[in-house]
Amino acid sequence: MRIIENPFSLPVSREPNRLGEIYRAAARIIREKGFDGTSMNDIAEAVGLTKAGLYHHISGKRDLLFGIMTYGMDALEQEVIVPARALEDAEQRLRTIIHNHVRLITSRSNSDGNNAVTIVLDEVAGLTPPQRRKIDQRKRAYVDLIRDILRDLAADGKLNAVDITTAAFALLGMILWLSRWYNPEGRLSPEQVAEEVAKAALTGLLRH
Amino acid sequence: MRIIENPFSLPVSREPNRLGEIYRAAARIIREKGFDGTSMNDIAEAVGLTKAGLYHHISGKRDLLFGIMTYGMDALEQEVIVPARALEDAEQRLRTIIHNHVRLITSRSNSDGNNAVTIVLDEVAGLTPPQRRKIDQRKRAYVDLIRDILRDLAADGKLNAVDITTAAFALLGMILWLSRWYNPEGRLSPEQVAEEVAKAALTGLLRH
Repeated sequence: MRIIENPFSLPVSREPNRLGEIYRAAARIIREKGFDGTSMNDIAEAVGLTKAGLYHHISGKRDLLFGIMTYGMDALEQEVIVPARALEDAEQRLRTIIHNHVRLITSRSNSDGNNAVTIVLDEVAGLTPPQRRKIDQRKRAYVDLIRDILRDLAADGKLNAVDITTAAFALLGMILWLSRWYNPEGRLSPEQVAEEVAKAALTGLLRH
Repeated sequence: MRIIENPFSLPVSREPNRLGEIYRAAARIIREKGFDGTSMNDIAEAVGLTKAGLYHHISGKRDLLFGIMTYGMDALEQEVIVPARALEDAEQRLRTIIHNHVRLITSRSNSDGNNAVTIVLDEVAGLTPPQRRKIDQRKRAYVDLIRDILRDLAADGKLNAVDITTAAFALLGMILWLSRWYNPEGRLSPEQVAEEVAKAALTGLLRH
């Protein structure tokens, strides 16, 4: 996966796949043991590196949380935001957001029903204040994008009469909650879940 | 608030309101500082007790997380599950779940947009295995209740053609995510948010 350039990126390893693997493993361990309970040794062991080898890729525990969140927001930017922004039609942009964000979460979930990178994105208490500002700013930009799409949809006469901010967060909650329950070894494929979430979000639970 | 009897309850303080206040304050501090960064002193200070006074109510940090989660699940049981189960009609049960659960979260949110008790309910990594089994069991029972309601709704011919498990978790995600964004000092009252979430969930984002 290409890590896209953006003002919030950490210096990127020359082996981006290896770095991604490290961040995903670290996120899983943090989810299991908590951030304070996670050691650099645990992470090195999980990815088959010596501790010295791990320090070749990441500078230490202090920047680990921020690194994981930046990695997660970069993936969101590249796989969800950029493709959605490229489209003209508001409904198509909304469908792309739902489909690509669901796929981003489900395609990297574990059999224990966790996408740990997405979950760790919520652990902002462990960041320094400047790090937290940067991550919050990127999250806010995503919420604003969804609200803009809903406003455009309303202008096209296609939005149900719902409050736009509530609708944006409701949609986000549906998608992000997948990171806590979706089991890739279960009954539904990532593609099927994306379809079902889109149906539930766009047409609602009650029959018309 | 009366703490209802159930097999998972911790021994309840003779001053249930005080205990609730302690759990809510502890959850806020855990959300801010992380569980390992939270001391009994922090909690005592937040609720205006001496450390000895605090130990009169709770046995120590070890059982604190489980205590907060039990408190949160008791409130869910009492304010959402029991009233919904009392109703015959599936659509009314679903509307009661949405309305009462949204109200439970929004009516106890802070101005920083957090309902910390709801958020701490997700910190299962800090529990002992038997504690985790108990909390997971209660959460699963709630998901099962929602799925049963959706099945009854389908039997009444009122459910949109959506996968029932995906729909149940999508609905839960919408509601639980409120704990991370709803600001009671903002534009929308708890009652308005409950209405808007119900509209978004039941009739969807797209106009028909």
